[in-house]
Amino acid sequence: MKKSIKLTPIGVIHSPYTEPADIHPLRSRFIKGSIEIFPEYAKGLKDIDGFSHIYVLWHFHLSEKVDLLTSPLMEPKPKRGTFATRTPHRPNHIGLTVVRLLKRERSILHIKGVDMVEGTPVLDLKPYTRRDRRSHIRLGWLDEVERRER
Amino acid sequence: MKKSIKLTPIGVIHSPYTEPADIHPLRSRFIKGSIEIFPEYAKGLKDIDGFSHIYVLWHFHLSEKVDLLTSPLMEPKPKRGTFATRTPHRPNHIGLTVVRLLKRERSILHIKGVDMVEGTPVLDLKPYTRRDRRSHIRLGWLDEVERRER
Repeated sequence: MKKSIKLTPIGVIHSPYTEPADIHPLRSRFIKGSIEIFPEYAKGLKDIDGFSHIYVLWHFHLSEKVDLLTSPLMEPKPKRGTFATRTPHRPNHIGLTVVRLLKRERSILHIKGVDMVEGTPVLDLKPYTRRDRRSHIRLGWLDEVERRER
Repeated sequence: MKKSIKLTPIGVIHSPYTEPADIHPLRSRFIKGSIEIFPEYAKGLKDIDGFSHIYVLWHFHLSEKVDLLTSPLMEPKPKRGTFATRTPHRPNHIGLTVVRLLKRERSILHIKGVDMVEGTPVLDLKPYTRRDRRSHIRLGWLDEVERRER
């Protein structure tokens, strides 16, 4: 049950960001970039153009650290449980981002909403569907931080 | 860049489903179950209770097949590109589900929206935030299928 799982990148992110420190989670919503899917996986992109939004699963390849408690960027104290944040320093270094799919050119996807650095390995793409859209959400510590910032 | 990535499960899903064939993507929204996080990762659950919805990243541990084109359950023909579907038979066998977090009891999370089988390895949990909520979405082939079913 606890045996390890091996993943292989299917592509790579092209991003204007070169340093993780430059990425701001809220501003990144407007940042454009692209996903280059490696030729051996390109066939799997059929029909993806129909979706306005896709999930990108990617590898936090610059982090080798694992924290179970972490200091969020928006409010460093108190520390929060890692699974209640989107920190890179997680037990399994997987990142998840919803991006807008602007255009496909063969095996290149032009996207908006880039919060990864140039060269980030891509692990999977999935369509964003109605089941992923939740209207009434509660956001715990994030709600408190945002309320205070208003 | 294409070096492989190793993941280790942080927990396991408890589900009323024992067979993948019994899982219906739309009905599963109402199915209750739980996530058991292994003791060594439990500290990372701090603050998670504040969130109404979380992402579960999990391992399609029963699939060893990789398809780049796949026959969706809802409409088997034509075949669709794997990255335009949520099929288990993907290059990296990672599943992604938004679940409602009902209650936390120590390292057990009671959830609603289970579309995994009993014993599914859990890889990561992330809070579902405002950035994950997209209101105007286009759903490509899925829109067509749903329109025809109405």
